[in-house]
Amino acid sequence: MSLITKSLRVKRTPFTDGVEKAGVKAYTVYNHTLLATEFDSLINDYHHLKQHVQIWDVSCQKQLRVKGADAKKLIQLISPREISKTSIGQCFYVPLIDQTGGILNDPVILNISSREYWISIADSDYIQYLLGISGGLGLDVEIDEPAIYPLAVQGPKSEELMSRVFGPEVRNIGFFRFSELEVMGTKMIISRSGYSKQTGFEVYVPYEENCMPLWDLLMSEGKTLNVRIGCPNLIERIESGLLSYGNDINRSNTPFEAGLGKLVNSSESFIGKQELLKRPFQQIITPVAINGEIPPCDRAWPVYLKDQLIGQITSAAYSPDFQSNVAIGMIKKFDGEGHSNVEIETQIGTRSASLCKSFWN
Amino acid sequence: MSLITKSLRVKRTPFTDGVEKAGVKAYTVYNHTLLATEFDSLINDYHHLKQHVQIWDVSCQKQLRVKGADAKKLIQLISPREISKTSIGQCFYVPLIDQTGGILNDPVILNISSREYWISIADSDYIQYLLGISGGLGLDVEIDEPAIYPLAVQGPKSEELMSRVFGPEVRNIGFFRFSELEVMGTKMIISRSGYSKQTGFEVYVPYEENCMPLWDLLMSEGKTLNVRIGCPNLIERIESGLLSYGNDINRSNTPFEAGLGKLVNSSESFIGKQELLKRPFQQIITPVAINGEIPPCDRAWPVYLKDQLIGQITSAAYSPDFQSNVAIGMIKKFDGEGHSNVEIETQIGTRSASLCKSFWN
Repeated sequence: MSLITKSLRVKRTPFTDGVEKAGVKAYTVYNHTLLATEFDSLINDYHHLKQHVQIWDVSCQKQLRVKGADAKKLIQLISPREISKTSIGQCFYVPLIDQTGGILNDPVILNISSREYWISIADSDYIQYLLGISGGLGLDVEIDEPAIYPLAVQGPKSEELMSRVFGPEVRNIGFFRFSELEVMGTKMIISRSGYSKQTGFEVYVPYEENCMPLWDLLMSEGKTLNVRIGCPNLIERIESGLLSYGNDINRSNTPFEAGLGKLVNSSESFIGKQELLKRPFQQIITPVAINGEIPPCDRAWPVYLKDQLIGQITSAAYSPDFQSNVAIGMIKKFDGEGHSNVEIETQIGTRSASLCKSFWN
Repeated sequence: MSLITKSLRVKRTPFTDGVEKAGVKAYTVYNHTLLATEFDSLINDYHHLKQHVQIWDVSCQKQLRVKGADAKKLIQLISPREISKTSIGQCFYVPLIDQTGGILNDPVILNISSREYWISIADSDYIQYLLGISGGLGLDVEIDEPAIYPLAVQGPKSEELMSRVFGPEVRNIGFFRFSELEVMGTKMIISRSGYSKQTGFEVYVPYEENCMPLWDLLMSEGKTLNVRIGCPNLIERIESGLLSYGNDINRSNTPFEAGLGKLVNSSESFIGKQELLKRPFQQIITPVAINGEIPPCDRAWPVYLKDQLIGQITSAAYSPDFQSNVAIGMIKKFDGEGHSNVEIETQIGTRSASLCKSFWN
């Protein structure tokens, strides 16, 4: 492993002081921003996440705010998913595509009002697409990145911790719904969502000055719940089948290939609709169990079925709970019966593996 | 310092094996890609770059290829710089802006033909803007990221090394011009350019399979020139006043603030032209010499003149040659005479500093 060089270009967040104090061991860079990847150890972090509650700095999920008379029109133009059926207070996950049907980002969008949406982005500068398309079409919208810093509270004890801090109203927030609640004299949007399947919330903390005080308050109220500072956990997110843009999917893939075909349901005309529907659909995101010791998956691992290349592995880690390496691959669709045994070529050698029917969590 | 976590999302390049073998100590992430920042030490790398010749993996400068009937029209629409005056075989550095006049990227563009341009991008996903604007305007262009991996050969002995490998024709390539030359049976575009002021070239290596063979050939031909694997050097680029998008300038700045006003000279109508010309111009990139010991500049350092905030430092490093800390700041324009002494607030304390009239190299 190598060190990461500090510079202003790779942004600290208003929570980075807390992340450092908690003994972060490693980072990745996500949306030009530091994102912790490991505190105690990947495996200990994983066990703790599944049993207790963790606070995550996910400020790297930058908020793109789209406001104005044409806000809804713009969202409809970029979204393969039906927007008119969403209601105010709803979060919706959606693969956003370009004019060829390729995925540009897979954010969660918050429906704030018919004139305002927040796009909580994955790792690409989607604001540049928004600026281009709205400028090209001459739409009446304002697009900016407000000072909002998402903090995730994840794990089975997250509801208890959140209710201690924000009051019992948090228990009434439905899955992928949000409410505005007050803490420390400031109203904050809170959604029941997050990048794990251990249940949890995301708090959209407004303004830098509220960040560390809320962080400290959550840590203090969570002491008896064994709260810890954590981060999205590679093992848990693979078990849960949570895709990572840039790892598992990118602009060469369609939402169908991403296994998100059910989210392509807009009755409106959206950009890339015809091209998307015409594109061949020959491969799809697939859970894969790999045998033997594996290195970090820092490059695509080819997948072979009887010497024929049928796809690639894009994320992989050892899962203590399932006592197997769990992985995500983009695999050619084929008559699958009896063909689940494949070979994977890693940088340290070939491994046998099985294509699975479902993710683990 | 913390470790950087390996994953497919943070891309290796076709040269990464060579970078690792050369003993890279630290990386940054640039355009979702690994970029080495240090080999021997920042200071030893710096001295070597100024005396000899280095090979740099700058594949992170991704090439966006714009081709088709409307290619020139698109480039004119996005560029504040006059394009019609550039000729085929010319590279031109240009701050690209959005509809508000804010900088989205500051690439070097290669004029390949009137129907084809390559945009060698700095650290933002500018392809998303290109896709948005060309889609919104319905332009007849093809936009893609071809398999081209830039390799830089930098330092005072770079011309000698390049001529040993590509033949004496490289000596005829003018500054910011390119030619197509053949090596190992493959034609490659070679420009006299690069992210240092120690003279040098960039080779646009086509296809992954040519990368390590060319790398090895350059290393072997350069043995008697004391060639080394290197990388853009923080100290040298600050001395040279080479801006870094995301550090020194970003979307909140105009080309005027970036000190690039002379590049705003297009007689064509380009997107954001009126807005850019109307925007207030109250601050500008400024070289700053800082006294005393300084930490890594991983956050903006406020700059004070007699207790009044007048700007911020965005890049800084100790320069052995100038025996001073050299820095880049964005500083308010004011009646400057006699006001060059300022104070800088770093994360480890306040430092005295002077605003300078020019960069060091």
